[in-house]
Amino acid sequence: MRVVITGGAGFLGSRLAAAILARNTLTDARGVERAVREVVLVDVAAPRPYDDPRVRAMHGSLEERAFVDAAVTPDTDSVFHLAAVVSGQAEADFDIGMRVNVDATRHLLERCRACTTPPKFVHASSIAVFGGALPDPLPDDAPVTPQSSYGTQKAIGELLVNDMSRKGFIDGRALRLPTIVVRPGKPNRAASSFASGIIREPLAGIEAICPVAPETELWVQSPRAVVENLLVGHDVDASRLPAFRALNVPGIAIAVSDMVAALRDVAGAAVAERVQWRYDPAIDRIVSTWPARFDARIGPALGMRADADFATIVRDYIAELDPQLAA
Amino acid sequence: MRVVITGGAGFLGSRLAAAILARNTLTDARGVERAVREVVLVDVAAPRPYDDPRVRAMHGSLEERAFVDAAVTPDTDSVFHLAAVVSGQAEADFDIGMRVNVDATRHLLERCRACTTPPKFVHASSIAVFGGALPDPLPDDAPVTPQSSYGTQKAIGELLVNDMSRKGFIDGRALRLPTIVVRPGKPNRAASSFASGIIREPLAGIEAICPVAPETELWVQSPRAVVENLLVGHDVDASRLPAFRALNVPGIAIAVSDMVAALRDVAGAAVAERVQWRYDPAIDRIVSTWPARFDARIGPALGMRADADFATIVRDYIAELDPQLAA
Repeated sequence: MRVVITGGAGFLGSRLAAAILARNTLTDARGVERAVREVVLVDVAAPRPYDDPRVRAMHGSLEERAFVDAAVTPDTDSVFHLAAVVSGQAEADFDIGMRVNVDATRHLLERCRACTTPPKFVHASSIAVFGGALPDPLPDDAPVTPQSSYGTQKAIGELLVNDMSRKGFIDGRALRLPTIVVRPGKPNRAASSFASGIIREPLAGIEAICPVAPETELWVQSPRAVVENLLVGHDVDASRLPAFRALNVPGIAIAVSDMVAALRDVAGAAVAERVQWRYDPAIDRIVSTWPARFDARIGPALGMRADADFATIVRDYIAELDPQLAA
Repeated sequence: MRVVITGGAGFLGSRLAAAILARNTLTDARGVERAVREVVLVDVAAPRPYDDPRVRAMHGSLEERAFVDAAVTPDTDSVFHLAAVVSGQAEADFDIGMRVNVDATRHLLERCRACTTPPKFVHASSIAVFGGALPDPLPDDAPVTPQSSYGTQKAIGELLVNDMSRKGFIDGRALRLPTIVVRPGKPNRAASSFASGIIREPLAGIEAICPVAPETELWVQSPRAVVENLLVGHDVDASRLPAFRALNVPGIAIAVSDMVAALRDVAGAAVAERVQWRYDPAIDRIVSTWPARFDARIGPALGMRADADFATIVRDYIAELDPQLAA
């Protein structure tokens, strides 16, 4: 298997690459489990060093067609498309979101269409494709009516993935990921960035701002579970996917106040008190359009899993930060 | 009002232009009813001659950006976007469908965004955005899961119209039109072309082929009603539109066999017997993914109307063919 991961140097891409390298096999579009020959990490940033001959880093922008053409060689078997302009930035700058989230995605798909065998294509979509007044909990077949540019662009990607799969150009599957918590590193321009910040920064001794109301609920999943679900979504046979090839990845629904309460339980009151509540209408306007509770049935039927609870997510994050501390 | 109609030389565009010229007023994006100053007919074909100083014909392809830029001047108040690669052709040639139905639509929207005041933008969408296993009748908030390239491309247009309206770039509304029956002229590459052919050709003394099963149901509307509904959809204030700016135009559900029975009732058995039943799986595969029965509530609440019944549609068509014959 030759596997391309866009956003491969990022936090999620690195974890996915590590998981694929550790497993060493993936199921191809014909249903055959094959050894992983090459993992190509495509990113604007350079990845961390890998001491593994199967890893190849390619450094460049998906907006450059020649770069995409070089990355997705005709013998590519799988593409995990994680790279995107995040929600806050896509809302602030419509054009850059369209260029990266739509145009670059489309060119990537076109390049996959030119492969010798139609590759598997895992499109990292988002619950941001949903918006407006929605049933609670949200069923799997809820209408896609995004109320943000990011959600719009992800929904366009889903439509392309579905139709190009139907035409036999690719073997695609769009996976709508919950908000991923806890992301390590620095805040980014995702409207949901605070959801990791209110756990990560207090644990690092830094104050964090929560820009939404305490009762705001989010649909969240740990990085570990997301990676496992991306692999399940990749490996599953196309015949088991819904007729329209997009599905909601399971998660857990939790109020922001309960996230902070879990942080208090796990790490103590002094840590939890580093969360500052400062309402930001621009962020709340985006976040509040996302559904927080899903009745996700298709994903679990395929073998996808949610985390056990939020305290476990916090403990796992602490354990990864400092394995000795957690032991 | 400066009004641009893409596909303005076509059958529907011509009727729409005539209706706008006859009314002489439209309601602009600020809710003000204003006189129609100019109707610009944009088409790859030349329109029929108009003896009206308000009409301007512009002959060219929407794929040419400079042409679109020349057509949509900054003082444009309204765009009716009717031009499209039809369903059968979009299915046979994915790329031309993407270029015209997606890329040209997007450039047209971008050009509207550059107007002095955000213009009204009526996107002629289609019930082909729906597909697969669907509730019967289909509610207004049914999920958009197209199973054809045409439906996919129309759905992408809807997403763009909605998001660009939300951003204030345009004042858009996507209207999902039923199958229009009876279209005059020649068969086209729409998968639904037969639905007009089985009425039009027998009345002209010519045999017509029906490529779907007699019990196949369609959601149909006469050209006259579609034009009226396009004008309702244009004039309605944005505040009355659904949060996601796409809606199902009302129609009537009828089996193909009942269409032929209505033709027999109106025009006689000899005419109806000119319909030949010859099943074509390629056409049936597309048509059968479209829902035939809708529970359309939003459109009627805005003032949109369905035809009274199919016999009336046939009689109206005959009357227009030859007003003396029908008298």
